[in-house]
Amino acid sequence: MVEKVVNMAHGGGGSRMLELLEEVVFPALGGGTPLEAEDAAALSLPEMEAGGKIAYTTDSFVVKPMIFPGGDIGKLAVCGTVNDLSMRGARPLYLTVGLILEEGLPLETLREALASLGRWAAEAGVAVVAGDTKVVERGAADGMYINTSGIGVIPAGREVSISGARPGDVLLLSGCVGDHETAVLSRREGLDFRVEVESDCAPLNGLVEAMLEAGGVHAMRDPTRGGLAASLKEMATASGVALEVSEGDVPVRDGVRAFCELLGLDPFLLANEGKLLAAVAEEAAPAVLAAMRAHPLGAEAAAVGRVAEGRAGEVSLLTPLGSHRLLRMPSGEHFPRIC
Amino acid sequence: MVEKVVNMAHGGGGSRMLELLEEVVFPALGGGTPLEAEDAAALSLPEMEAGGKIAYTTDSFVVKPMIFPGGDIGKLAVCGTVNDLSMRGARPLYLTVGLILEEGLPLETLREALASLGRWAAEAGVAVVAGDTKVVERGAADGMYINTSGIGVIPAGREVSISGARPGDVLLLSGCVGDHETAVLSRREGLDFRVEVESDCAPLNGLVEAMLEAGGVHAMRDPTRGGLAASLKEMATASGVALEVSEGDVPVRDGVRAFCELLGLDPFLLANEGKLLAAVAEEAAPAVLAAMRAHPLGAEAAAVGRVAEGRAGEVSLLTPLGSHRLLRMPSGEHFPRIC
Repeated sequence: MVEKVVNMAHGGGGSRMLELLEEVVFPALGGGTPLEAEDAAALSLPEMEAGGKIAYTTDSFVVKPMIFPGGDIGKLAVCGTVNDLSMRGARPLYLTVGLILEEGLPLETLREALASLGRWAAEAGVAVVAGDTKVVERGAADGMYINTSGIGVIPAGREVSISGARPGDVLLLSGCVGDHETAVLSRREGLDFRVEVESDCAPLNGLVEAMLEAGGVHAMRDPTRGGLAASLKEMATASGVALEVSEGDVPVRDGVRAFCELLGLDPFLLANEGKLLAAVAEEAAPAVLAAMRAHPLGAEAAAVGRVAEGRAGEVSLLTPLGSHRLLRMPSGEHFPRIC
Repeated sequence: MVEKVVNMAHGGGGSRMLELLEEVVFPALGGGTPLEAEDAAALSLPEMEAGGKIAYTTDSFVVKPMIFPGGDIGKLAVCGTVNDLSMRGARPLYLTVGLILEEGLPLETLREALASLGRWAAEAGVAVVAGDTKVVERGAADGMYINTSGIGVIPAGREVSISGARPGDVLLLSGCVGDHETAVLSRREGLDFRVEVESDCAPLNGLVEAMLEAGGVHAMRDPTRGGLAASLKEMATASGVALEVSEGDVPVRDGVRAFCELLGLDPFLLANEGKLLAAVAEEAAPAVLAAMRAHPLGAEAAAVGRVAEGRAGEVSLLTPLGSHRLLRMPSGEHFPRIC
């Protein structure tokens, strides 16, 4: 890397973040790139029965503002971690919560965030089992940051991994992209928009169970920071395959499209917090898509493309005009602190 | 609580923090007080063999300065979580690392912290298996905060809990108290001390294994925020027993004593990051103490008191002058951000 200090793009979920991870973080932690290629680690424990594994992950939440249409930092802290576990085919069970509070934070704000966190943990069927609270001086944090980590159990025989997409698979997307980032930015100080878009923030474990019961799911990813574009590139790279996506088949809400046109943004790059992309065996795809559409969080699910032989890591977009363009890994981010 | 905003004392590990947890945090998360009475949660997993449990915990690190004599934020992030797992009798296995970085943080500082984190994870025999990186704007964090969560396995039959102390038990302390907080404060901007005390920051899992092999260990706690005083009060309260401690038997380094005298502090209230307090069956105490002294991290271990019938939660100190005084739960903290 050419720079000598951390900058905002290092947190954006794109190629600049990958650079930071690969050049600074992974080498130090001895994990090599596998450390974060997956949404959650799949681990064996000495005393677990043969075949069973746990999934384990962590996420910090620094979203600004802390309350936005359709969600808040507490809900996000549950969904982000539950969803990362779900992307490994795990059944989420337990969460930890680490609070970093700024001196002067209204207790009422803390109460509301935690009430939401507790409510959504119950909704997702996970128990908060351990926590930690730190307070830093006024000016040393922006109100409140929340870290959650989570554990789930991966039943024996389930093999879902970002590296599992195979040529011939169908790409399914669970719904419209861009809602979360649009909703957060619409309430950002200094950005005076009043688009009527709510965040899609939701725990995906129920939807994932329904999909896995239908069978044939090889790979999943929830397109958070870096958006659908980053998830497609990551899946193509990790699985060593090419992806072909039909841009016109990716559902985008009118409000999100208008917001993007106004600001010159691309909905494919916007963060989501309740969506998933899946690579599914061709013969299983109709049943999985039907299972998704039967679930409230997958009502707008669509087949958006397929996995091809082609060059590993290449994502090709068929535009509505019939031309092809290659998708690039987003480099930084549009706006910081959207999760 | 009378106040309406978070203040520094809410993060101090004393009674003010307990108030925040009991009145604001626990009710929202549905955990009741057991949530944080223990250093780590002990959990059953659906597919684990009968009797085996996992321990699970989290901790955030906001220490200032990030490098201090005997340690740094990366080492602390490993030791804090490894030690919390160890206090449940667990063998620590896996860590997650959540980074919150401030824009402008020198990459060299990040590299050093992570190199230390990686080195100490290896030293403690734990693997970093998942991570997350967020970047916040200049002024929205103080350089870097690190959250770690950790998982360990509690072998079947091991029952170590803060609520396990029984009348007749001997209280063993693994070494001198106050080193960590003294070392950190000695390098705090604005406090111009040059005491020659190093932090005791160290992973205690090896020491704990040696103690548990000797047998008879009922309860353990590492006296971090709130110091030995908070750990004694917490053990007395959680176990429903009274504790009698001989003040003169608690080892305190000269440098720490001098530092405390200068600032009017009490070494019993200073944070440690590589010490433990244990309640051990009387007949097993000599063997456990010998095992501790045979370990590099327990060379200065001492018997410091005993568990009595008496009033639940009461901690009585026998002063060097022969008088008794009741120990009170520290209310806030001396200085913030010592871990």
